[in-house]
Amino acid sequence: PDLACIERAKARQDQLTKPRGSLGRLEQLAVELAGLQATDQPSADPVAITVFAADHGVCDEGVSAYPQEVTAQMIANFASGGAAISVLAKQLGASLEVVNLGTVGPVEDLPGIRNEPIAPGTANLALTDAMSSEHLHAALQAGDRAAERAVKSGCKLFIGGEMGIGNTTSATAIACALLNRPPAGLTGPGTGLDPAGVQHKQDIIQRALHRHGSDTSPASILSSLGGFEIAALTGAILGCAARGVPVLVDGFIVSVAALVAVRQQPSARPWLIFSHQSAEPGHRSVLETLNAEPLLHLGMRLGEGSGAAVALPLLRSACALHNAMASFADAGVSQ
Amino acid sequence: PDLACIERAKARQDQLTKPRGSLGRLEQLAVELAGLQATDQPSADPVAITVFAADHGVCDEGVSAYPQEVTAQMIANFASGGAAISVLAKQLGASLEVVNLGTVGPVEDLPGIRNEPIAPGTANLALTDAMSSEHLHAALQAGDRAAERAVKSGCKLFIGGEMGIGNTTSATAIACALLNRPPAGLTGPGTGLDPAGVQHKQDIIQRALHRHGSDTSPASILSSLGGFEIAALTGAILGCAARGVPVLVDGFIVSVAALVAVRQQPSARPWLIFSHQSAEPGHRSVLETLNAEPLLHLGMRLGEGSGAAVALPLLRSACALHNAMASFADAGVSQ
Repeated sequence: PDLACIERAKARQDQLTKPRGSLGRLEQLAVELAGLQATDQPSADPVAITVFAADHGVCDEGVSAYPQEVTAQMIANFASGGAAISVLAKQLGASLEVVNLGTVGPVEDLPGIRNEPIAPGTANLALTDAMSSEHLHAALQAGDRAAERAVKSGCKLFIGGEMGIGNTTSATAIACALLNRPPAGLTGPGTGLDPAGVQHKQDIIQRALHRHGSDTSPASILSSLGGFEIAALTGAILGCAARGVPVLVDGFIVSVAALVAVRQQPSARPWLIFSHQSAEPGHRSVLETLNAEPLLHLGMRLGEGSGAAVALPLLRSACALHNAMASFADAGVSQ
Repeated sequence: PDLACIERAKARQDQLTKPRGSLGRLEQLAVELAGLQATDQPSADPVAITVFAADHGVCDEGVSAYPQEVTAQMIANFASGGAAISVLAKQLGASLEVVNLGTVGPVEDLPGIRNEPIAPGTANLALTDAMSSEHLHAALQAGDRAAERAVKSGCKLFIGGEMGIGNTTSATAIACALLNRPPAGLTGPGTGLDPAGVQHKQDIIQRALHRHGSDTSPASILSSLGGFEIAALTGAILGCAARGVPVLVDGFIVSVAALVAVRQQPSARPWLIFSHQSAEPGHRSVLETLNAEPLLHLGMRLGEGSGAAVALPLLRSACALHNAMASFADAGVSQ
């Protein structure tokens, strides 16, 4: 972040024709973006959305309300424009790219879908490491390449999303390992488990944590408990931060990937803006650990980057106000 | 609200390619708008924004951080596009109309400004009724006419805003009278009073409430303690509700006008969607009384309709998702 730009942005906010501070979080957002983008004219556009998709071996344990083939079916739905993030990307004029990192069923060639399969899903993390260190490396690299493509395309802001039946189980296990907390307070219904289903999911996560042991290094947690799409998100976040592009972080899954990234590279933290707080119970704890105050509390829990997309207009408004409002002097308004 | 449309909208939400309920408040918003607009294709567009401006005699008591001439100066700033709501209206593609109901200083003819002055501001509500019953009637009618113009223009959603130095004093006094609460918990800094200033403002409001007495009829409270722009907002809200157009309610001042409207006409309540919770302390109590859960909590306290404008994209996204997402059957996604 550019401190001179931050100071100039703060000074400008205090000269705009409004009571000081009266735009609340929008003022902070504009100042923050000015610093991150090293500019006097912060912008949330162009914005690049990349959704990472992959399957999870832990679905063998019956941890999701949906069958595993839904991951591949939803990839087709992204391509045909019927998924939530497809509708939002179109509405918001954002570019949307979907990266398939490996599903159990085949995924045909479809427009807007990059097939970069690592394996037909991860291994069952309740029984064994979800991925090898080679697979982890491949997933992190896939995320970094996506960040590189987005930055090369000229984006000023990056949104990462995910799709993967079973991935709240993986993300919750990662969160428990990173926060050193038992799964009881962090496990939620995901796509819609009933209370007995949540209890079973919690037991599976507990088993995975026991298997994993006490290794707290982010990389080992990610390979032991992660998903390809979660690791790719970590890679994309680190890639954006390293290239100086802010990331608008989506919900629970992406926040867990962000936490892994920040544990690995604390200097990535300032590049993260947190869009919303998910209804998934573990999200609050992850956000608190990251000292993050999300912009929206709408009870969303869909994933795909949808919460970040819904929050994007707040950043756009913050930038428009910062860049286009008159100053007291310009407008001849008494101060 | 059309109950059949509500039922069909709920059924549609449950068929879209997402876990049930996973869009949280956005699902409720789409269903609510479908019922209010009596349609299967709810929409937040076109949207009409009307800002009502007027001066307040109570400024004689030194209740604002800004001089009273700022009201007229800001009307000119609305016209030239430099005010927050001007920037937001342009950014969001919303129509913006400003109705001047009476300022202490003259307001020249300016594009986009309707001059409909009732008097050069209200009388000092600390000493006497802020307006006569004729003035009250004129202000309510000005609001109703604005609603009529907006509806005739084809708007699907109405946003009312306000500008008037001193109007948090008036709005707080109205809220205290309607809620039968002392000013201590409801009085705030408005545009930026220091703690001594807030205490003084509270004393002035207490004096006004003592003068006003125990009459709890909404009309008498409005003429005794109101402002022209607040009464016009009440008229506009009642006018939109009567004509079947939903209102996206802005912050503290507009919510107080909405409370007056609902006390006068309880059937207006379903037509109100509350956009944000202001940093002004009285807003929470007014929202609670209206059983309203606002969409945004961004610490804004600017007025002008700015909070509602910032929340507008949430309604747009809710509608886009409702109207354009694929169903499980259409997309061939397992349920």
